[in-house]
Amino acid sequence: METLHGNIPVTTPTKTYVAPSRVPGAPGLPHRPSPEALEVTLAELAARFGNRFSVNTSVRAAHAHVLSWTAPQPPDAVMFPHTAEEIALVVKICAAHKIPIIPYGTGTSLEGHVNAPYGGISIDTSYMNAVVAVHAQDLTCTVQPGVTRKKLNENLRDVGLFFPIDPGADASLGGMAATRASGTNAVRYGTMKDNVLAMEVVLPNGEIIKTGSRAKKSSAGYDLTRLFVGSEGTLGVITQITLKLHGIPEAISAGICPFPTVRAACEATIATIQSGLNVARIELLDALQVKSVNAYSKLNLPEMPLLMVEFHGSDLSVAEDARRFGEIADEFGGGPFHWATAPEERSKLWAARHDVYWATLGLRPGTKSLATDVCVPISRLADCVEETQADIAETKLIAPIVGHVGDGNFHVGVLVDTDNPAEMQAVDGFIERLVLRALAMDGTCTGEHGIGQAKRKYMLREHGSAALDVMASLKTAIDPQNIMNPGKIL
Amino acid sequence: METLHGNIPVTTPTKTYVAPSRVPGAPGLPHRPSPEALEVTLAELAARFGNRFSVNTSVRAAHAHVLSWTAPQPPDAVMFPHTAEEIALVVKICAAHKIPIIPYGTGTSLEGHVNAPYGGISIDTSYMNAVVAVHAQDLTCTVQPGVTRKKLNENLRDVGLFFPIDPGADASLGGMAATRASGTNAVRYGTMKDNVLAMEVVLPNGEIIKTGSRAKKSSAGYDLTRLFVGSEGTLGVITQITLKLHGIPEAISAGICPFPTVRAACEATIATIQSGLNVARIELLDALQVKSVNAYSKLNLPEMPLLMVEFHGSDLSVAEDARRFGEIADEFGGGPFHWATAPEERSKLWAARHDVYWATLGLRPGTKSLATDVCVPISRLADCVEETQADIAETKLIAPIVGHVGDGNFHVGVLVDTDNPAEMQAVDGFIERLVLRALAMDGTCTGEHGIGQAKRKYMLREHGSAALDVMASLKTAIDPQNIMNPGKIL
Repeated sequence: METLHGNIPVTTPTKTYVAPSRVPGAPGLPHRPSPEALEVTLAELAARFGNRFSVNTSVRAAHAHVLSWTAPQPPDAVMFPHTAEEIALVVKICAAHKIPIIPYGTGTSLEGHVNAPYGGISIDTSYMNAVVAVHAQDLTCTVQPGVTRKKLNENLRDVGLFFPIDPGADASLGGMAATRASGTNAVRYGTMKDNVLAMEVVLPNGEIIKTGSRAKKSSAGYDLTRLFVGSEGTLGVITQITLKLHGIPEAISAGICPFPTVRAACEATIATIQSGLNVARIELLDALQVKSVNAYSKLNLPEMPLLMVEFHGSDLSVAEDARRFGEIADEFGGGPFHWATAPEERSKLWAARHDVYWATLGLRPGTKSLATDVCVPISRLADCVEETQADIAETKLIAPIVGHVGDGNFHVGVLVDTDNPAEMQAVDGFIERLVLRALAMDGTCTGEHGIGQAKRKYMLREHGSAALDVMASLKTAIDPQNIMNPGKIL
Repeated sequence: METLHGNIPVTTPTKTYVAPSRVPGAPGLPHRPSPEALEVTLAELAARFGNRFSVNTSVRAAHAHVLSWTAPQPPDAVMFPHTAEEIALVVKICAAHKIPIIPYGTGTSLEGHVNAPYGGISIDTSYMNAVVAVHAQDLTCTVQPGVTRKKLNENLRDVGLFFPIDPGADASLGGMAATRASGTNAVRYGTMKDNVLAMEVVLPNGEIIKTGSRAKKSSAGYDLTRLFVGSEGTLGVITQITLKLHGIPEAISAGICPFPTVRAACEATIATIQSGLNVARIELLDALQVKSVNAYSKLNLPEMPLLMVEFHGSDLSVAEDARRFGEIADEFGGGPFHWATAPEERSKLWAARHDVYWATLGLRPGTKSLATDVCVPISRLADCVEETQADIAETKLIAPIVGHVGDGNFHVGVLVDTDNPAEMQAVDGFIERLVLRALAMDGTCTGEHGIGQAKRKYMLREHGSAALDVMASLKTAIDPQNIMNPGKIL
């Protein structure tokens, strides 16, 4: 192991992920480029892009995966394009020499999406950060991929609109589209799947296509937009995105409500959704998570299962929704429900929610947080969370739970000493049991984090070999050389 | 021309549609099966399925396209499966002999989707009409493809839930998924794209796959569900569908509001959407369409541009929404807005809206209605409708307009004597101008009717050759023999 950049250890992958080769159409096995091909490519890119191209060790290390437990695997070089045409040129050069390409947004993904297990060129879109157009009448905007969600929302405030998808981190919209991001607001506003109208994409052969249009709906052929949303950079590089926007709600109410058990909180959530309240966010924190938040964010929340809720609507409706939610909570033994409409109180609450990743680390200083997620039908959520808590206790892990429970989606942040192989193995086993539990409940191995490197091994379990073959044949159809983000998803 | 069934003329296609062959991966040219292959296949299917298999002339004619102007092209035979396994068997037999397969729901599509230009076997799913499961807590249900939307909603009424997508006709849910149907409620509840969670599909090689799960969201790989939704039977046969459901609103208000001009009605629509009213339906009828509705449904509506609107919510909110809509209408010179919450009044109104297809025919008895649709960003809707009305006047057509204006989607019902070649040519030119107008406004050649046969010629214009090549390569990857509904979309 060598150390490239501060305390970021660089390791070769500990597991061999082999792309499926069950069907004639399966993508080629990923491979490191030959030294000669790499040398030619790097020289050509350096000549064309000057100081927007770098083979600097620390720049490369900064583009390997840093936010989670996955071992960083830096690319061979990083380039910083200004335009789609520049990206197309890089892709054409790489395609000619079979050099892997790894699209890079802000590096806040959690499953090793931006790692370069086979080397190659990381394309960092951070200079492509223009809001190209806002069409307020149409409730749409068009952005370059490097625009972050916070920057977009600052830009939109003056026209009274906002973009709701909020995965916590200030991710780039290109990355959010590529990973089919969602987050706390998804229960009301959907995920990236629901909020991307159109995209511009550079294909693995360097051609530039447009998917979709600014029309709100279309039945004109295969849904390429939805194919590229969530494709994690394995089918092309997203260079422009047209998004649906929403009016900033006239009023917002938010609050917290403790419950005696996780089950009671889940049942109150189901009742809330069914009753048609205008719930925009409904988040569950288990007692351990609340404890960590109290310590990190200097709060005094009751250390028991807690729902954090938010309603969007008119002054009248959010007050009415809050009142009715209080009644529902009471019915399931929860409460008291404290709610507020003042922006500063709400901000404090949601800042604490967004900081759970950092708060979690405080429960066991010196360790890393292995953040994983699953999603199940909401009727099975209480079962899934309770069984998972029992598993955590039995495995003797420290692992708080927080969830977007309105969607049946929850996260476990497992605190782990990544240098301790026995502990890593125990965590591996725990995550496998968590995934199988979710699948047995007709759920999915990931609601929003994506597959990346770490969850590839569950793809066959979730989809079955015939459906996985279809995915592999789509990959081959679009990227026959397997140069786009190889070693991810499949 | 021979006559097979009553007055349904059977013609060979008047236009040669050639599947794209620009890329190495493009699907093979569709072809009629050889007489020998067909004979063997028909014999094998007859032996296996007995009276659920038919080569009867009138049965075949009834499965060719009958609702619109497209010339019917009957299949060689029709079979009526009970299970996905039976469909898989039929597909395997057909694949072995390269016989085309045409999935059939209720035959209410409008662009020639169920025609059999290259012959083959129509798979009629009407016996597969079971509601497999309703998960009320999860707001989901799972149905066989032959269940119609009205039957599903009857089934759901007792649990207080409903499935909102309403394309007008009592279509089957398999067909609705295959064509990415939407309709009057889409402005609030989205289209089939947004309301299908998971599917079971028989692939062109006879394998059965599941796409998606019952989890409300997932980031686990490529979005196969969205790829099959809207694929018009060209990628596989949908054999089961898991749908999102919604609570029946506590209260509904609906009403009609006349406007001095189409533009005023469109501007009021934009303001209504932007103001965040809980609008579930907002439909525009132009003056000619209102005239036809008055005659057909024996109503007395003011014969000027009219909005029909519906709000869903609580007693309080629908009254408030109706009040605010009245104010908005007034601002744009519209009104008076007459609204009601009584179910019988609302039903009468929406029955009239749903009958516009038949009402339109009354404007020129003896002709056919060529129903076409486009969709544009809502800010361009007034421009698009006004320019289209001017075009209709100039071309001397009788062609009322009705639209799902909240989505920027509108329909033109052109009344045409299909036996008059000059008239058919004029209509062809009109539709081409309509499509190009929508595309120039960053819209789409179809918001909800689909491509089928009739709009294939606009695919290149809308998507460009590189994106169309991607679609062709997806088709080839999944259906290399091009046996699934050949001659459609591509």
